[in-house]
Formats: sequence, C-alpha cells, structure tokens
Amino acid sequence: MTPRSPQQKTYHTSNPVAETAIDRTIPDLPIAQLSDEDKYFRTHKAPPYLPEIEQQVNDFIEYHASNTGKRIVLVTSGGTTVPLENNTVRFIDNFSAGTRGATSAEYFLENGYAVIFLHREFSLLPYSRHYSHTTNCFLDYMTEVNNKVEINPDFADEMLVVLRKYKEAKESQSLLLLPFTNVNQYLYTLKLMAILLQKIENKALFYLAAAVSDFFLPQSRMPHHKIQSQAAGKLIIDLEQVPKFLRRLVDNWAPSAMIVSFKLETDHLILIDKAKGALDRYQHQLVIGNLLQTRKKEVVFVHPDGSEVWIRLTDEQKAKDMDIEGLIIPAVIKEHSQWIEKYSK
Amino acid sequence: MTPRSPQQKTYHTSNPVAETAIDRTIPDLPIAQLSDEDKYFRTHKAPPYLPEIEQQVNDFIEYHASNTGKRIVLVTSGGTTVPLENNTVRFIDNFSAGTRGATSAEYFLENGYAVIFLHREFSLLPYSRHYSHTTNCFLDYMTEVNNKVEINPDFADEMLVVLRKYKEAKESQSLLLLPFTNVNQYLYTLKLMAILLQKIENKALFYLAAAVSDFFLPQSRMPHHKIQSQAAGKLIIDLEQVPKFLRRLVDNWAPSAMIVSFKLETDHLILIDKAKGALDRYQHQLVIGNLLQTRKKEVVFVHPDGSEVWIRLTDEQKAKDMDIEGLIIPAVIKEHSQWIEKYSK
Repeated sequence: MTPRSPQQKTYHTSNPVAETAIDRTIPDLPIAQLSDEDKYFRTHKAPPYLPEIEQQVNDFIEYHASNTGKRIVLVTSGGTTVPLENNTVRFIDNFSAGTRGATSAEYFLENGYAVIFLHREFSLLPYSRHYSHTTNCFLDYMTEVNNKVEINPDFADEMLVVLRKYKEAKESQSLLLLPFTNVNQYLYTLKLMAILLQKIENKALFYLAAAVSDFFLPQSRMPHHKIQSQAAGKLIIDLEQVPKFLRRLVDNWAPSAMIVSFKLETDHLILIDKAKGALDRYQHQLVIGNLLQTRKKEVVFVHPDGSEVWIRLTDEQKAKDMDIEGLIIPAVIKEHSQWIEKYSK
Repeated sequence: MTPRSPQQKTYHTSNPVAETAIDRTIPDLPIAQLSDEDKYFRTHKAPPYLPEIEQQVNDFIEYHASNTGKRIVLVTSGGTTVPLENNTVRFIDNFSAGTRGATSAEYFLENGYAVIFLHREFSLLPYSRHYSHTTNCFLDYMTEVNNKVEINPDFADEMLVVLRKYKEAKESQSLLLLPFTNVNQYLYTLKLMAILLQKIENKALFYLAAAVSDFFLPQSRMPHHKIQSQAAGKLIIDLEQVPKFLRRLVDNWAPSAMIVSFKLETDHLILIDKAKGALDRYQHQLVIGNLLQTRKKEVVFVHPDGSEVWIRLTDEQKAKDMDIEGLIIPAVIKEHSQWIEKYSK
C-alpha cells in the first residue's frame, strides 16, 4: 500500500463559503502505519559522526569494487550499551569482550574477504586481541635492553607472526575499523552499512556477532542528569523493546546480501527453538546458535529448511588451543558462495 | 550496645523436669539490629577467590611494615557492574574508564606510597594506561625491522620512561593489582582490605575513586538464565539500594585510617551539597567533588569543617597536557600527613 501524504486532503462540500474548509465528516484514508524501525529513527537522533563514517565506507567499498573484486563482510562485534541518563554515568551493558567478532574477522581476512569491523569501542580488535584484555599489562610484553625498549623474548616470535598479518591487512586496505558504544549508534550505523553495501549486492555478507540490547530507554524519557538515589529508595527502570531491525535489513536495506546472525542463550533447552524463531521472523539465511557456557567449543548452524549442523572442536583441536572460528568461517564462506551462485542464476 | 549472642539463653523454671527446657514465657532481650551492611553480607556470597586475595594483601602489608615502612594507599578504580542474571549476559554498568584511579596510583607511587590498586578488570592500569584504551591498536606501536618486532620509533623514547617507572614499581614490590567486576566482589574486597589495613592504622589511606553502583539486584531475585524478551513487552528492573558501606569503613573496619572519597555529578548546582551530604553521612575526612564534564581540569576538596578548596589546572598546565592528579595527589598526601600527626599526638 502506498503511503498517503498528509498534504492530500479531500474536500466535499457544496457550500461556497466552505469551499476552502476541510469537511471532517469524511474520514481520511488511514495513514500507512509506520514500522517500529521508522518510529525509532524518527524519535532518535543520528550520531553526529555518521556522515564521516559514510565517506569512509563508501571509499572502502569503491576501492574493493574497482581494484580487488573482494567480497566484503560486515562483522559486528561486542556489546551495545543502553544509556540510562543523557549525561551518561549509568548504562545497561551486554556481556561481550568481542572475542567471537575479532577472531572471526581474522579468519575472513585470511580467506580473502575485505572486512568492515563494526565494534564496541575498546572491545577486542583483530590481531591486537592477542595482546589486549589479558591479565598481562601492556608493559609486561616489553623489556629494556641497552637503554632501549625491546619486546620480551618470550613473546617476540609469536608477535612477529601476528604483526605481519596485521600489517598485511592494513596495507592491502582490507580492514576498516568502525567503533560504536550505545545501541543507538549501532542501529544507525548498521542501517547505513546495509544501504551502502547494497552496491555490491550478493557479494556482501553480514556477520552479526555483536550482542545487541533487546531493550532501550527512549531518548524522550531519559533524564538529563545523573539519576539521584533516594534515602531508602528503589530504582525502577522501565525499558522499551528495541525494534527488530533484522527483518528490515533483509526486506528493504540490503535484500540481496547474505545475512548471518548469532543467537546466544544460557539455557540449552531453548537454544534451537530460539534460533528457529529468529530465522522465521527475520527471513535471513543462517542463524548460528551458541551457549554462553560452551561458545568457544561448539556452535550450531540452523538453516531455514530446518536443518541443524553442529560444529565442534575435536579434543585434539582443543588441546592445540585452536579457535572454533577456524571452523566456523570456512563453513560460512561455503554458504556465501552457494548464495552468490544461486542469486546469480 | 553489645550484641547478644544467640547462644545465650535464660532459663527460669523451678520444675526439675523442665530444668533443661527453655522457658519461652520470658522474652529474650531484643537481638541487636542487623545493619544493612550485615544483612547484605549475610544474603550475598563472598567471591570464591577472596582467601587468595587475603593472602596476597597480608604479604604485601607485612612486607612494607617490616621492610620499607611505606605508607599504603588503597586506590579503587573503575566502575562496578550490577548483574541482572546469574549466568550474566546483561548487567548495569557505571561509566568509568579508570583514568582517575590509574593516574592517581602513578602519582602515589612517585611520592613514596605503596599502592594496592583495586580496579575493574580491563580498566586502565597505572603506566600501561598510556598505551591501552587509545584509538591505537596495540600493534600500531610495533614495527618490523630485520625480521624482528621493534617499537615504532615515534613512541620508543617516551615508552622507555614509562617502562622504567613501571619496572621500578614492580621490582620494589610497591604495586599490587587486584581486579573486581561486579559490585558484590567490590564490596567484599573493600571490607577485607579495610580489616587487613587496620594493622598499619593511620598510615593507611583509602582513596576511593571507583564508580560504585548505588543500586543492585539481590542474588535472591536474580533469574538463573538470560531474561527472555517478550513479543511486545517491556522490561522492568526493580533494584535495591546498595548499603552505604563508607560509614562502616570509618566506624568498624578501619577506624584509624584516613578516608578520601569522590563525588561525581553532572549538575554543577548540586555538586557541593552532595559532597557535604556525603561527609555528614560517612564521617570521613575528605570528599573530592567533580563534574563529569570538567573532571580532568578541576575538582573541589570539601572538608568536614565546611571549607571548599578548588584545584584547577592553569592554562599553561593544560597546554602541557598535565594530569590534574599531579595536583590532587600532593594535596591529599599533605592532608594524610596532618592526619597522621594529629592521630599520633
């Protein structure tokens, strides 16, 4: 149904004096319902840096479309925050160090993809993740030799391997790092990415590993200053549900891209059902289910045809400390190749 | 009033058969009211690693008491989380990168204090803060020269200065790093520190820069699994107020230590009143007030006698990118010296 502009009014009157008046006895056609997503974007301001990101991403896509022909994956990573105040002191956060996203990005890069890494600021980054967020302090990797800072020999050989991969990704312009913090920034940036990536159609892959809040506090209800605690008071926070954007991603913003999302649960009894529910609701191509407790050792690929395929590290692979993303990414890429083939027919 | 042990029962009977029975017609003396803090500790489990921390801190205090005679400051730093689920996916967090705490710890070390740094895991650490949480990735500090990882020459000289200070702090055993994540871990660890630091009496300084949650979700009400979002549902989170521990710190746990706490607000109109309110309530020696917007440039020392002293970076100091902690710490140390002198009379 075509939305009706509010300017189009219908006049029904034979009274010449009333020619210019609106006859309110004739009801307007119902105005097309705004989707929850549209309502959200109408009532929440875009982050001010969005035009800058648009430029960077356009250049990145243009470069690869014209020069390398690489497929491009958007990897989202880390948790979004939900600010509870405008001058943010308190916020609700989702648990995620960003390990899944950062590790996956490395395997995509090594398999020839260009990667847009949309990540929670200060969460783990591809390659540098090996040295941050450990119990080691940055300076524990360093030592002083002849009045010069050097890399501690215990770490030097492995660091050289990682550094080379990182420099290769940077020099080939295959890795674009974009940060977000709160859920509003995430939603606006994701929408923008989807619209821009539509240019490369089915060569675009969305790999949505970020832990996005289900609930948020609307900007209209947000207190300007820090919430004050009362003498013996309780705090009651009344949150709204975040609109389910994934459906729009498929239908409107990037209909020809392949979309993979994650479903993280803590209760194994509901994992498969929740993953299937997400597939039904969003109509994308693959949901990867995982449990908080075992997510580094096993995941399940759930497809629209109902098939479930478990991917697990073997005991030997666990002993070698292999990343499960080393199994996940080649399997996702295979499905992306099939998607491209099917779409191109 | 002295609390009455529950074992102390009073027997009033002349019936020999009933000699060993409790006469319930005589009411027990009223049992001393549990403070909010006691109630909290009775209904919330201690983190399992607490005995290990106790050992480390005991050794640290013992070492300095016997060998160096240094004063010891407990610096708390970073924000506490409030888990909303037992298998934590979602939590409420307080904004704090830990800059104030990490920077202050460096100035305490350089002024001859031994520092226990009780910090939010992965927040900024003394010295390494110069290289983490920047927009630079860890590996951007590195470069490859003749098949070897080296420090990028742009950073090498400054890094040598920082590395030397860090190694000095470590080798003199003057810096003990202890992490926390959630508010329960913070409260248990703070209480333990207070009890242990009582050994060095007025040579102990508490410098409480952590951003501690005012509200929490009691363990008894916490769902075991991830909260499920309903079709069109809202989420209402009903939180309890965190007991005000600072008073107990003064009265019971570490009555001879000097205690400094911070009051962070976003509204300048209420800052001083809130700081004075905290002083009245907790009876400690100094509250440092600061506004979220200007906290890196100015703070206000508020004292029990009502005096307010603003500490501000000059334009020249700002131009040199000087840390305001370079002004705060010497001023705090001066007050600690006065405290020791007064107490020793």
